[in-house]
Amino acid sequence: MELGNGRLPSLLGKLKFPIVLEDVTAEEVAEAYNVIREATIDLVAPLATEDYVVQSCPEASPPKWHLAHTTWFFETLVLEPLLSGYEAVEPLYKMLFNSYYESVGHYFTRIHRGTLSRPTVAEVMFYREQVDKALLEWIRSIPADGWAEVVSLIGLGLQHEQQHQELLMMDILANFAANPMNPSYHTLLPEGSYNPVADIEWLSIPEGVVQIGYDGVGFAYDNELPCHGEYLSSAYIANRTVTNGEFLEFLNAGGYSAPLFWLSDGWRWVNEHGCHHPRYWRQVDGNWFEFTLFGLVPLKLDLPVSHVSFYEADAYARWKGLRLPTEAEWEWAAVNLPITLGGLLEYGNHRGSDESERQIDGNSRYSTDQGNNNAYTNGEGSKYGVDNNESNKHRGNIYRAGPVTGPPGALLHAIGGVWEWTRSPYIAYPGYHPPGGYLGEYNGKFMNAQYVLRGGCVATPVAHIRPTYRNFFQPESTWAFSGIRLARDES
Amino acid sequence: MELGNGRLPSLLGKLKFPIVLEDVTAEEVAEAYNVIREATIDLVAPLATEDYVVQSCPEASPPKWHLAHTTWFFETLVLEPLLSGYEAVEPLYKMLFNSYYESVGHYFTRIHRGTLSRPTVAEVMFYREQVDKALLEWIRSIPADGWAEVVSLIGLGLQHEQQHQELLMMDILANFAANPMNPSYHTLLPEGSYNPVADIEWLSIPEGVVQIGYDGVGFAYDNELPCHGEYLSSAYIANRTVTNGEFLEFLNAGGYSAPLFWLSDGWRWVNEHGCHHPRYWRQVDGNWFEFTLFGLVPLKLDLPVSHVSFYEADAYARWKGLRLPTEAEWEWAAVNLPITLGGLLEYGNHRGSDESERQIDGNSRYSTDQGNNNAYTNGEGSKYGVDNNESNKHRGNIYRAGPVTGPPGALLHAIGGVWEWTRSPYIAYPGYHPPGGYLGEYNGKFMNAQYVLRGGCVATPVAHIRPTYRNFFQPESTWAFSGIRLARDES
Amino acid sequence: MELGNGRLPSLLGKLKFPIVLEDVTAEEVAEAYNVIREATIDLVAPLATEDYVVQSCPEASPPKWHLAHTTWFFETLVLEPLLSGYEAVEPLYKMLFNSYYESVGHYFTRIHRGTLSRPTVAEVMFYREQVDKALLEWIRSIPADGWAEVVSLIGLGLQHEQQHQELLMMDILANFAANPMNPSYHTLLPEGSYNPVADIEWLSIPEGVVQIGYDGVGFAYDNELPCHGEYLSSAYIANRTVTNGEFLEFLNAGGYSAPLFWLSDGWRWVNEHGCHHPRYWRQVDGNWFEFTLFGLVPLKLDLPVSHVSFYEADAYARWKGLRLPTEAEWEWAAVNLPITLGGLLEYGNHRGSDESERQIDGNSRYSTDQGNNNAYTNGEGSKYGVDNNESNKHRGNIYRAGPVTGPPGALLHAIGGVWEWTRSPYIAYPGYHPPGGYLGEYNGKFMNAQYVLRGGCVATPVAHIRPTYRNFFQPESTWAFSGIRLARDES
Amino acid sequence: MELGNGRLPSLLGKLKFPIVLEDVTAEEVAEAYNVIREATIDLVAPLATEDYVVQSCPEASPPKWHLAHTTWFFETLVLEPLLSGYEAVEPLYKMLFNSYYESVGHYFTRIHRGTLSRPTVAEVMFYREQVDKALLEWIRSIPADGWAEVVSLIGLGLQHEQQHQELLMMDILANFAANPMNPSYHTLLPEGSYNPVADIEWLSIPEGVVQIGYDGVGFAYDNELPCHGEYLSSAYIANRTVTNGEFLEFLNAGGYSAPLFWLSDGWRWVNEHGCHHPRYWRQVDGNWFEFTLFGLVPLKLDLPVSHVSFYEADAYARWKGLRLPTEAEWEWAAVNLPITLGGLLEYGNHRGSDESERQIDGNSRYSTDQGNNNAYTNGEGSKYGVDNNESNKHRGNIYRAGPVTGPPGALLHAIGGVWEWTRSPYIAYPGYHPPGGYLGEYNGKFMNAQYVLRGGCVATPVAHIRPTYRNFFQPESTWAFSGIRLARDES
Repeated sequence: MELGNGRLPSLLGKLKFPIVLEDVTAEEVAEAYNVIREATIDLVAPLATEDYVVQSCPEASPPKWHLAHTTWFFETLVLEPLLSGYEAVEPLYKMLFNSYYESVGHYFTRIHRGTLSRPTVAEVMFYREQVDKALLEWIRSIPADGWAEVVSLIGLGLQHEQQHQELLMMDILANFAANPMNPSYHTLLPEGSYNPVADIEWLSIPEGVVQIGYDGVGFAYDNELPCHGEYLSSAYIANRTVTNGEFLEFLNAGGYSAPLFWLSDGWRWVNEHGCHHPRYWRQVDGNWFEFTLFGLVPLKLDLPVSHVSFYEADAYARWKGLRLPTEAEWEWAAVNLPITLGGLLEYGNHRGSDESERQIDGNSRYSTDQGNNNAYTNGEGSKYGVDNNESNKHRGNIYRAGPVTGPPGALLHAIGGVWEWTRSPYIAYPGYHPPGGYLGEYNGKFMNAQYVLRGGCVATPVAHIRPTYRNFFQPESTWAFSGIRLARDES
Repeated sequence: MELGNGRLPSLLGKLKFPIVLEDVTAEEVAEAYNVIREATIDLVAPLATEDYVVQSCPEASPPKWHLAHTTWFFETLVLEPLLSGYEAVEPLYKMLFNSYYESVGHYFTRIHRGTLSRPTVAEVMFYREQVDKALLEWIRSIPADGWAEVVSLIGLGLQHEQQHQELLMMDILANFAANPMNPSYHTLLPEGSYNPVADIEWLSIPEGVVQIGYDGVGFAYDNELPCHGEYLSSAYIANRTVTNGEFLEFLNAGGYSAPLFWLSDGWRWVNEHGCHHPRYWRQVDGNWFEFTLFGLVPLKLDLPVSHVSFYEADAYARWKGLRLPTEAEWEWAAVNLPITLGGLLEYGNHRGSDESERQIDGNSRYSTDQGNNNAYTNGEGSKYGVDNNESNKHRGNIYRAGPVTGPPGALLHAIGGVWEWTRSPYIAYPGYHPPGGYLGEYNGKFMNAQYVLRGGCVATPVAHIRPTYRNFFQPESTWAFSGIRLARDES
Repeated sequence: MELGNGRLPSLLGKLKFPIVLEDVTAEEVAEAYNVIREATIDLVAPLATEDYVVQSCPEASPPKWHLAHTTWFFETLVLEPLLSGYEAVEPLYKMLFNSYYESVGHYFTRIHRGTLSRPTVAEVMFYREQVDKALLEWIRSIPADGWAEVVSLIGLGLQHEQQHQELLMMDILANFAANPMNPSYHTLLPEGSYNPVADIEWLSIPEGVVQIGYDGVGFAYDNELPCHGEYLSSAYIANRTVTNGEFLEFLNAGGYSAPLFWLSDGWRWVNEHGCHHPRYWRQVDGNWFEFTLFGLVPLKLDLPVSHVSFYEADAYARWKGLRLPTEAEWEWAAVNLPITLGGLLEYGNHRGSDESERQIDGNSRYSTDQGNNNAYTNGEGSKYGVDNNESNKHRGNIYRAGPVTGPPGALLHAIGGVWEWTRSPYIAYPGYHPPGGYLGEYNGKFMNAQYVLRGGCVATPVAHIRPTYRNFFQPESTWAFSGIRLARDES
Repeated sequence: MELGNGRLPSLLGKLKFPIVLEDVTAEEVAEAYNVIREATIDLVAPLATEDYVVQSCPEASPPKWHLAHTTWFFETLVLEPLLSGYEAVEPLYKMLFNSYYESVGHYFTRIHRGTLSRPTVAEVMFYREQVDKALLEWIRSIPADGWAEVVSLIGLGLQHEQQHQELLMMDILANFAANPMNPSYHTLLPEGSYNPVADIEWLSIPEGVVQIGYDGVGFAYDNELPCHGEYLSSAYIANRTVTNGEFLEFLNAGGYSAPLFWLSDGWRWVNEHGCHHPRYWRQVDGNWFEFTLFGLVPLKLDLPVSHVSFYEADAYARWKGLRLPTEAEWEWAAVNLPITLGGLLEYGNHRGSDESERQIDGNSRYSTDQGNNNAYTNGEGSKYGVDNNESNKHRGNIYRAGPVTGPPGALLHAIGGVWEWTRSPYIAYPGYHPPGGYLGEYNGKFMNAQYVLRGGCVATPVAHIRPTYRNFFQPESTWAFSGIRLARDES
């Protein structure tokens, strides 16, 4: 599946993880590198210097940490081991900007990242420039026998950078939301009109053995591998995600004070943290508001509920007498049913640029194996405050998932919009083996006590997501752009 | 599968959960009730009054709490709703001995159970007697139209009591182990001879769709339902569990200080708790000992390692380049391969009574579906300090899992011995619906952030376990008699 | 000052700390030892075995721990160092029952004392018997040159045992209060009549240099030494302590939700612990009750408020526009003004025995230095539910401080009744030097972040208290029988 | 006593707290206001924008918070209540920059101040400018009948601002010390020569009643009032503070692992925090360094030890067989003995300006009451890295207390250098009454569980300190420039 042909570098379509790449040119690598690294800088452009420094909660990191850590990846994991004679810009950065790689050495305590005023933003920018310069020079002189390994690592570094682009948006939102000044990342856009939110439809999932996991020729993370058989019982999945208005019904029905709808751990979470609404909802004088990247705005009932925990998603589903889908159900539906796109982060578009229409195609396995039912429609997208149906411009705004509209019979906004909690714990696929060395720490060691989310969100770079992509968070996590799609058993 | 025909009440073979029972007599119910309730009292017979009171760690409960809580189950969930005019022995017990049933009302804080000196042991025993008397009188006068529901609930109460029999042994061990006086529950038995520990064999699991979950006509918990299809990739499972000696190699190789063998959460657990050996191992002057129900004894290298966490089991497996089995793999093997029994708790036998030979049969589905490969051999059992091969007496001692010996080709001590960690998170089976009311809280609300263990242990009542049984604990838990059986992918 | 001539052993009047004693006989020592050790056993007589085991809060200890620890004092600090050839009853007790003496070696974690079921109560009683026997045999054979040291240490051990007699009552109350069963230590006694609670009078304290600290010839703790000059400004001290009814006015006036009456740390304490009434008050259906050693009884408005923290005492005083006295003011008043006694623990009397009238005299310094203004009146005592003015029997019941009645012009219930918080931090007197060795750990190392309380309470042994006695607790502590006496500056 | 005649505004000498002022002109107020407010800005001049934002430990605050909070004081406590029609620059600041005044309303959680990126530094500077402008305009138009109150409050606001000047230096040091980059606030100055550290002399304190507390005509805080009698026993106080080298002996002698030298709470602090050296000492390859405002520099043995806790100070004193002085002893000595000055913060001098000689005189009471023994000598001051004896320039550098040199018989560096822990808990003086309203929260509510420090330090503004000044911190606090002066009893 290819998303976003526009400014998307061709390299990304050729990456494969963890095996190596050969058929790309240095120019292709340099172009991809420049585009993606610049996109990161575009994202932080609206920030004041002070905004780069703070860490309002343990799960967030200061924006300048992301800028440095993504650079650290290229310096420590690519340049230092592979470029003979390379000298680190600042030796301490190896420790300071290591996130969690035990095989690389010690690292600074995560929860204290926000206590560090130095290096300054300017010093971090200098770090980025120095590493970029060294890498781009080097890339043009690599001998053929090392080429494949280098390019594969750079490609992984770029995927990694894209993950941090989404984290940047999550963290900026978390930081701003914790500030009584209610700062906004972006001014509220004028609102267009859009079609009504789609009615709920239950899309059928047939019983049988299906293939789950990535088997394409492009890039996928190790945790999407290997493609393997799973047995599905017959079930149904909802065509769209749950709206704010629907979730408000749960809240108003006393959902947050009814233990029987909650997992035991979830009920403890509710009580220990005094949860009684989604993380970014605020009630002021009886009216509901939502804190967003536009600042504090009235809660719009037709938008998908966002930033809910797995516990909240699960409790909501139980209250409805339903359940969350498994990740296999979700993946089958996303591959085999018509889908539309919600908003996604596209390079440039968050600055308001035009965007051409595009056609989404499945990857080879999907189209080959499943026949022609894979006719993705154009998504009407996330138009919260911005889109209109005529021009379909700005479809992919990255600030807030828009209302889920679209044609009948499709898995609407399956890709983009909000991440969708599944009921599947994040574990290894059968036959999974983590790669050796530090790469083995990338995903494998987190396969415990987390749940899989699928589909990407408005803050996910358009070229980064695919139907087999497995995101994962702890069940109490509300920090991602996470929402709810329901499923039900064959009754 | 029937285990322990000896003193096993016939009722237990007829129970089915959650549906109702009709074809049992009041006498059968009374016999089962008496046998199982008395067995609980037998277990606490070696205790001093003070031993009933303490709670040495948050996960344990005072023994007298177990005696009261199991009685509470019959009083609050059976007598009060169903026996008109029944008056509670003491109204406060409804709150004090409610474990976690939100639908029943408030309950006393779990971690403070050990702060309560009242009711005294004698008062708890009086409570048991009063409830027993009321229930046994009533059971003989129930009209036919209410019979099935009553008997089903009593049957569940007896299964529940059996679970607490195992918990009693876990808690007594935990409490004694936390006491510098090193008290012992039982004097060390004279040691017999036994065959050498079996060599590791890798038993083959074929690829394909299998049926997982209970489909027999007897009792099973709701979490074993429904029986459903799962797809297995081809793999191998070890014929026996890991020994103390093998685990000591991991320890001596620096396993507890090598982060790359551990899940990220596991590595945090190791460091925050300063773990560097299994919970009940002690090193004294360079020699390893193990705290057991016999008190502190030298570590025996040929016994199965016990009381390890999931994190330790998983790290050990990674260190070996292997993995833990999934619960589906385990269940398939236990149903379809020859198995032997480890020690199990049998009524009377922990007091040293003889025990007749017995034949283990699969339930109907297994024998019907899978043909004749279900030839369970007689287990040689747990003989730590007690058994000998000739007489096979005392096989099921309940104090410490014995060495795993047995014939080639069999899944040795699959049932009994130690609980075996699987790599499967504890989640609902496809199509699972928790029952309504308080029964829905029995299992369903704990389906989060825990792992499934299979097979039972020396402290599991013999009539309580079956191949489809799903036990579950948090990955850091070391309080159960939990060990390690390895698996590996088809390479 | 001598209190309780009745069964009080003559030894106690001759003890002096930390210097040595010579003029007592072995029989005197044996008599004192027997009386005081037996008094401890009398106190625990109403307990069930289970009651000896639990520790309901970190500050309390299990009753059996007190029984063992006081014995440990004699074994470890007296017999082992001084009696050649003495063998410990159980070597592990040295660690298990060491409270906090670093110079003696490791000790078991205080907050986990309630997790230990062994040694059992019977084993602890055996320990007491063995040590008693060894000590009493030995005491009759000590050569003259070691006599003084031995007797001084035994005397200290007996003072220590008396402190633990009070702690036993505090801990039993705390444990019972934490139990929803509301157990009672003693049945509620029939209530007698008594005079009305005394009206508040303000007793004048003149300006000038006074001598503070012990300078008598009897026993005093090191922290009462040396007697030294302090300068008092003129002030007033209340003739009696604050009643429940008066404190209830503070509560009803919103005192617990008005930050300006509280110290900053106190306000945090109020909010973090959700304090809104004294520790043992309970509100049931709008009516106030108090948990006491009689169980839960209606709150009596004319009793002195008890079990309040320093923070509560201080906030109450501020709300009244007043303050707490300093310990020097208190001591001056207790020595120089007429005083009466509240209830105190007397050996035997808690079992209801008669008690003869007695005359209280000051110690030499007070009577010599201060002339004849030291005319202590007979206290009318604590009659809560028991006393009457005619017979003055049972005056010193140990269960709950009684109403403060008495003649005008006297510092009523200055000794006994409730401990009285002073505004004085617990620090060393000028010229104080802690004794060497483990004795230096007895008091000196706790001189930080605590406040001094004066006067003793109903649970203080009658022969243990004196006007110079300095008790001390953390300001948040509510576990002692602590109340409030007010003072005010010369206006 | 007047310190720093140079740029010191005349207003400061005329302030009196809490009573009102009348004999100053608007120009005097404006001058004082401008000088002190500008001095704050001078202090933050070396910071990068990022340095204003972080809070590396709970006790510190972000520098920009100090800039805003001191402004809040003038806006919320002066302009809003007294200047009719004044409109707040930003209403939210009232809550955001309230430190702890319950009477003013809610305030933002202290420990989360470092999570706020907004308002930005520029916005805070704008806030300062707006408030300064409003206040300075207003001050020139106040009618005579309100003049005294206004000026008194402004005066208090300026004293408050000076306190935060010191806090700024403490917090910048704490933040930089927590950063592995080892940033420096100031480049290390070239080191001059100086006289050898003075030998220890024991200065005699006679027995008798002394007057303690402020009775001058200038400004003092409420906690220095009233001047009152105290009785001193005869004792000795050391002429100088303890050096790094002397403290290192304690460390090398195992002081941090010897429980008997520590208060019980101190020993717990040592173990829970793993303390084994003063907060800013670092050991690198066996060599000791100290983190200072110059960055990480080799530990200089002849400098006074700084940034030690009360626990460390007290343990050091016990190890020496000595003790800390009481605050009354300290004050008597500072008033009645010749003293010299250590470095102090003078406006301008931290930027390297010249400084004229100055003469320190006692306030009227001291010179009148005590005769002519109050001949303060010129301090040789803190010359660490900067001073030389000839020119005595830069004496008051604010970065690190310099070596204590000086003539015999004097209390050297009694004022300036390091704050000196006393053994006196921070409590109210006899007759103390906190002022009403929010002023009552300034000092009074913190009179619990803290110790008094005396004398000021290199970061204390020169015009802010006096011999009666009472600083206070929790005993575990190491964040101030706190050192050790010893005392001993008459032996």
